[in-house]
Amino acid sequence: MSKIITITTDFGDTGAYVGIMKGVILGINPEARLVDLSHTVGPQNILAAQFVLEKSAPYFPEGTVHLAVVDPGVGSARREIVVDTGAHRLVGPDNGLFTPFLDGSQVFEIKEKKYCLPEISSTFHGRDIFAAIAAHLSTGITPDVIGPPITNPVRLPRPRAQVSANQVAGEVIFVDSFGNLITNIPEHVVASWDKSTVRTALGNTDLTGIARSYAAPHVPDGTVIVLVGSTQHLEIAVVNGSAAAQLGLEAGAPVTLSRS
Amino acid sequence: MSKIITITTDFGDTGAYVGIMKGVILGINPEARLVDLSHTVGPQNILAAQFVLEKSAPYFPEGTVHLAVVDPGVGSARREIVVDTGAHRLVGPDNGLFTPFLDGSQVFEIKEKKYCLPEISSTFHGRDIFAAIAAHLSTGITPDVIGPPITNPVRLPRPRAQVSANQVAGEVIFVDSFGNLITNIPEHVVASWDKSTVRTALGNTDLTGIARSYAAPHVPDGTVIVLVGSTQHLEIAVVNGSAAAQLGLEAGAPVTLSRS
Amino acid sequence: MSKIITITTDFGDTGAYVGIMKGVILGINPEARLVDLSHTVGPQNILAAQFVLEKSAPYFPEGTVHLAVVDPGVGSARREIVVDTGAHRLVGPDNGLFTPFLDGSQVFEIKEKKYCLPEISSTFHGRDIFAAIAAHLSTGITPDVIGPPITNPVRLPRPRAQVSANQVAGEVIFVDSFGNLITNIPEHVVASWDKSTVRTALGNTDLTGIARSYAAPHVPDGTVIVLVGSTQHLEIAVVNGSAAAQLGLEAGAPVTLSRS
Repeated sequence: MSKIITITTDFGDTGAYVGIMKGVILGINPEARLVDLSHTVGPQNILAAQFVLEKSAPYFPEGTVHLAVVDPGVGSARREIVVDTGAHRLVGPDNGLFTPFLDGSQVFEIKEKKYCLPEISSTFHGRDIFAAIAAHLSTGITPDVIGPPITNPVRLPRPRAQVSANQVAGEVIFVDSFGNLITNIPEHVVASWDKSTVRTALGNTDLTGIARSYAAPHVPDGTVIVLVGSTQHLEIAVVNGSAAAQLGLEAGAPVTLSRS
Repeated sequence: MSKIITITTDFGDTGAYVGIMKGVILGINPEARLVDLSHTVGPQNILAAQFVLEKSAPYFPEGTVHLAVVDPGVGSARREIVVDTGAHRLVGPDNGLFTPFLDGSQVFEIKEKKYCLPEISSTFHGRDIFAAIAAHLSTGITPDVIGPPITNPVRLPRPRAQVSANQVAGEVIFVDSFGNLITNIPEHVVASWDKSTVRTALGNTDLTGIARSYAAPHVPDGTVIVLVGSTQHLEIAVVNGSAAAQLGLEAGAPVTLSRS
Repeated sequence: MSKIITITTDFGDTGAYVGIMKGVILGINPEARLVDLSHTVGPQNILAAQFVLEKSAPYFPEGTVHLAVVDPGVGSARREIVVDTGAHRLVGPDNGLFTPFLDGSQVFEIKEKKYCLPEISSTFHGRDIFAAIAAHLSTGITPDVIGPPITNPVRLPRPRAQVSANQVAGEVIFVDSFGNLITNIPEHVVASWDKSTVRTALGNTDLTGIARSYAAPHVPDGTVIVLVGSTQHLEIAVVNGSAAAQLGLEAGAPVTLSRS
């Protein structure tokens, strides 16, 4: 069994919270192998953490435990859960963070206190519950011993693009560290369209055509382009620049594709 | 013996210094398992690194080595030390960084050059001394072979809250990545007080009562609250917001609790 | 054989790209031990990543694989390569990133698709090619099986200081996280000079003498000093402050040393 535990939080790189969770995990399972995904998804940004998990978790080997803590509702009535996809287990709050993994998975509510820290605060379940449960899962316990199955985990779906015959209305769902604007428009909805004449409208910008990559001969720096990004979604970029900065746009900005 | 080595520095995530120290460690002990705590405590911020270590180190398993380098005095007469708490060893400069771990511990001055790199610069002891010593400790050498015990390590205590019968005068000691203002007022000093009528004054803000958690029904976003944080200290927060930004306060800001 | 894989990118700490690459590596070789060097060298900043690698890679044990992805030309005609220095292998784009490691090394162009992911995008070779190749190298395959040797890898040398009898004209090549301005002037070119009378000119600042360390008795905070940094290059610093911020200078700023 793999002892890999990935960690995704909104705790930032500064401060003690991430280190505390690492300590709790290794205190329970000193053989666990910790892998930081991201700690800077933005305070309380469940959808951004969901995006990071959705895109990266599938590449990890079978048996990996994914610990994720973006938890604005800590201390309230929201439940704590383990999602068992068969290949992977995900541990965290029941607030929609694991939405992309719910279909076909079993979900268990964390109830068995003996796999948690002895004292459970109302402010840091990442330490007292989630890190401890993730560590125990990495030692080989099965999720069914930590609590009963539940059938109604919270879902927090991302907005979906509206697709019609000649137009797709979507929005920016993630801004990456280069300032690329990743949309919720999957490539397949425009698969049959003529890529050279597709028109894209966002903010005050109108673009024609879909580029193949960020770099291309004879395209000057600063040019705004549309391309199919690495997650098979349409994405707006600036050649050797930041689309987010240059266009003044962020997550939520509407993006419309059309063909004439 | 555990081969876990945690690393805490003020080197930032950018640049080569952290990578160099990791290389030195693994060059000496390729089996060492590195765990980043934080590298962004702020340039020269010994108290912030002390806070990170104090809160997270105790959770790590016995035998863990904690390497910490916040070292404004590098190249001056300040000593290099290993603190042996029995369960853990801490390695770094003798500038107060390890104050919370000194009571009941043995402290050794690093003198044995054969456990350091062959050339010792006057600007990067993290590489030439501390990383090398941490790596050797993780291979199983005992601290007494690296130098003589000392009895007067530098102490850099945090300011303590002033407690009287009906009032506690403290201050903000750490701002976490959510903008929560963590104070030096431990919960136990107000344990016997009526939590619903405690008054808290900081900056231009007066608050009544102590909340149980960051989230609560019917409390609107942006509300300033006082609660007992995860480290059992009083903490000022803003519901789904940043207290530091909203109140314009930072570490050092006075906080006064009183009961009527 | 060591299973250590270091990772250096310009992907930032936020987002999914780094986590995806870690997943790809561990999906191929679950025993690989991942070591983050830096992910915040700055978008497209090949020279900064080159600097991080040049300074840290040599400390790692024999057999280490260094995965580095700063890749503005992804999807264009630029090649993908493995550099085999004998002790280490470096994997990434052929854009000059590995210039300091080329002399005396063998370089192979990545051509064998069976060591890559099944589908290769035109936007994320870090995932589809480089992470996969690094993982396979860590399992023990030799670089010659991934493609043919090449003899003309791209070189991207840093500007060199111009040295004459009484003057050295160089420039700032890296600003570290403290704001220290690291130059391309190696200490040895002024080894025979009288350190106490060396004059340094940069921006509007003229300095006399070379300090031994960042900290010195009786030197007030805010003083601008020149010293020999930990990489044996001349460096401009501010005592307990940031030279970059105080002097308003960044990489590329000219620095002239002279003796009278």
